[in-house]
Amino acid sequence: MGQGDAMSPHSLQVRDLLITVDRGMRYGIQRQVETQLRNAIRTGRLTAGSDLPSTRALAEDLLVSRGVVVRAYAQLAAEGYLEVRQGANPSVRRIRGEIKRPPRAPGPLELVPKPRYDLRPHQPDLGSFPRQAWLRSLRHGLQTAANSELGYIGPPGVEQLRVELARYLGRARGVAADPERVVVTLGSTHTLSLIARVVSRGGVTRIAFENPSHWLLHNVATSAGTTPIGIPVDEDGLQVDELPAAGVAAVLTSPAHQFPTGVALSADRRAALTQWARASGGLIIEDDYDAEFRYDRAPIGALQGLSPEQVAYIGSTSKTLSPAIRLGWAVLPADLVTPMRDELLTSVLQLSGIDQLALADFLRRGELDRHMRRMRTVYRHRRNTLVEALHRELPGSALSGVAAGLHVVLELASSDEELDACAAAEGQGVAIQSLSQHALPGYDGQPGLLIGYGAISEPAIPLAVKQLAAALRTVLRARATRSARA
Amino acid sequence: MGQGDAMSPHSLQVRDLLITVDRGMRYGIQRQVETQLRNAIRTGRLTAGSDLPSTRALAEDLLVSRGVVVRAYAQLAAEGYLEVRQGANPSVRRIRGEIKRPPRAPGPLELVPKPRYDLRPHQPDLGSFPRQAWLRSLRHGLQTAANSELGYIGPPGVEQLRVELARYLGRARGVAADPERVVVTLGSTHTLSLIARVVSRGGVTRIAFENPSHWLLHNVATSAGTTPIGIPVDEDGLQVDELPAAGVAAVLTSPAHQFPTGVALSADRRAALTQWARASGGLIIEDDYDAEFRYDRAPIGALQGLSPEQVAYIGSTSKTLSPAIRLGWAVLPADLVTPMRDELLTSVLQLSGIDQLALADFLRRGELDRHMRRMRTVYRHRRNTLVEALHRELPGSALSGVAAGLHVVLELASSDEELDACAAAEGQGVAIQSLSQHALPGYDGQPGLLIGYGAISEPAIPLAVKQLAAALRTVLRARATRSARA
Repeated sequence: MGQGDAMSPHSLQVRDLLITVDRGMRYGIQRQVETQLRNAIRTGRLTAGSDLPSTRALAEDLLVSRGVVVRAYAQLAAEGYLEVRQGANPSVRRIRGEIKRPPRAPGPLELVPKPRYDLRPHQPDLGSFPRQAWLRSLRHGLQTAANSELGYIGPPGVEQLRVELARYLGRARGVAADPERVVVTLGSTHTLSLIARVVSRGGVTRIAFENPSHWLLHNVATSAGTTPIGIPVDEDGLQVDELPAAGVAAVLTSPAHQFPTGVALSADRRAALTQWARASGGLIIEDDYDAEFRYDRAPIGALQGLSPEQVAYIGSTSKTLSPAIRLGWAVLPADLVTPMRDELLTSVLQLSGIDQLALADFLRRGELDRHMRRMRTVYRHRRNTLVEALHRELPGSALSGVAAGLHVVLELASSDEELDACAAAEGQGVAIQSLSQHALPGYDGQPGLLIGYGAISEPAIPLAVKQLAAALRTVLRARATRSARA
Repeated sequence: MGQGDAMSPHSLQVRDLLITVDRGMRYGIQRQVETQLRNAIRTGRLTAGSDLPSTRALAEDLLVSRGVVVRAYAQLAAEGYLEVRQGANPSVRRIRGEIKRPPRAPGPLELVPKPRYDLRPHQPDLGSFPRQAWLRSLRHGLQTAANSELGYIGPPGVEQLRVELARYLGRARGVAADPERVVVTLGSTHTLSLIARVVSRGGVTRIAFENPSHWLLHNVATSAGTTPIGIPVDEDGLQVDELPAAGVAAVLTSPAHQFPTGVALSADRRAALTQWARASGGLIIEDDYDAEFRYDRAPIGALQGLSPEQVAYIGSTSKTLSPAIRLGWAVLPADLVTPMRDELLTSVLQLSGIDQLALADFLRRGELDRHMRRMRTVYRHRRNTLVEALHRELPGSALSGVAAGLHVVLELASSDEELDACAAAEGQGVAIQSLSQHALPGYDGQPGLLIGYGAISEPAIPLAVKQLAAALRTVLRARATRSARA
């Protein structure tokens, strides 16, 4: 060698390339030559402008046929690593815009450091994602797709998937689902964005939201050109009787399990809500985001089943499988189907046919049911451990929303306490959210902390609660001091 | 049996179930029991309300342990097929919203019948999609993803992919790409929709488009709240000097290969365009949709490399790999990065982490280059065959846009001839598009047909051209008659 690690541009000799060929390896000889040259260029060991040896010289040295070297050079030239010139040896190309820093270096793009204990709500257990079963379905989708299914298929989604979804939602959630009413989307955020844009084009300017409800959904509505209007929630759910005065033409609700309070919409309110929609012509957007995780009570069927022409039903795989799948769906009233397809077409064109075929296969084989059955047990145990630990570490504290979902609510006295508690918890390495973070203007409901157990393993829960309790005790001491003074 | 094919609700005997167990099969016995029961219910052979045999009776009959039957029943109950009641045998559940028609029945959801010969432009060859290599990358992505990468990762996209894209676009297209300027999207339609919504929020109401350019993109701009303004195209590309008078703050252009005319933006016009953007503060949206397919001339680098702060560069895998992948990207001026991330967050939340990791792996292994090198050869041969066949069957006809892309333009005398030709071709089983289908108001350029060769095999090309020529001869005869009369 004798050239040092990084070489200045010059005519490279065969020995400079440091290429070795192993005839026993899995990959062909051409690939070995290609890979070693590519790596040498990418790491900067072979510098821009250097001339490579001739194909003949390299082939002779490596004891391979000249064609192997010719093809390896051609591939690297096609990739832009080499410059091939008539009558001259190829040279290492100067690469525009090449990355200076290593791919994994920390920087502004990195995620915020992971907290020691993640008790944020809305996070499903990612370690339990059925990678093998999903891979099997991906393989099935990719191998059985007709060529045309790999092309421009447009909205509303692959028919096989819409059929399986209709079947699944019918039996699991009581949704009155016709495949022709199903539109496949990228997830619930996407579905809400599409619906909000569609109704906004129809002249709707105000959409009612449960207050509190997930902050991101408020931003989605705003981004789509509508104004989110908060409607209070009590122990029976959305206060439906406030809708007429709110001057809204649509309302987003999670009747089976309200986020973040955890309450279910009572039977009377369900009836009143569909009655409001029928009488006013308003649209109910039913966000059934995690209704399948319930532990102590019977499943509550979807509202949509009662009133399919008044309800746009929204669901996704984000909570049941993983937010990485990016498939969601809407089951729509007849008059919304075509506008939603058009909105999809002119904003994203279509979704991945391969992913859609994979989910169809996954549903068909009962894998989603199998996974959820397993996860219900996992989450129920975590929930029990969490509630026990909270009662033990913070005796006397009031918990609500424990029957379902992936988090419980620990009630506090004020929104100031919420702020103090979140900050103190962060200081103890515990990431947590408060109810008020999800409030819309006008919120005056119960303050509290949202303690999620989707993303934390069962053995870690008592340790996390110990840290959280330490943080909360400082807040509760301050409360005691305040009330002693008062 | 003695019960006929579909049985009315009653207490089923073991023999009614028609279950057989094969101990030599790949799948376990429980799965076999499950699958056969599920199929019997789905096909309607076991009707709603029927009681199944007890677990003990079925286990004894099948010579399997009782636990096998208990677990099979539990899985089917979880999937909603069976109703399990304390102290009674399970029964077949009535399924709400169950599909009446078979999944594959023809209906309004089916695609239009495939034409015998598909000569539409913009269709890549789907039969050549590298399914095995893509599956390998999917497997790699799925198996190497950190748990956190399966969760909420948000925009702008997985860093590994942004790094590989920046690298790839730098060397293959001369893009000045920093991973922090890259935003991953669902494809070029999605990218344009996001950019149009961002600039529309910034007060931009008019976006210039090349006239003609793809009709869908005009609808995307309209849907995003902006008005598309057509700017003529000549043999040097976009007539840049018309921009100032058009009162636009942004312009969409495909400088390397204009769709549908096939022209490239001349060097002078490139300079004038970036000059316009610098002087006016306007945004150039560079749609580099198929610049990598060129056959007779040197690759033309991206305009973005000349003027990164004036250009939003757009690309995707739709033409190079398949529209089924649904991954695209923007490389943005600094001031657009945060607004684009926000727009993504509040409209789709994020894209599939698995797909993004797969594409990163695919790029890293040089598979995209390998595929494109192969396809360039395939398409070049098709192009040659097509041009030969057109000269043979329609001597004297004028062709343009043959040097690159996936289609050629056959010039006609008028837009009436275009309409007649498309209709006549359809009558001969040939699907084809015209230039005017992609026109914006004010178009008075050359009329013609777009003859695509992405979706048709080489041996079929002469046959398709024969059919097309038969159709065109009727149109040309009409022209001759008209000019004889005149």
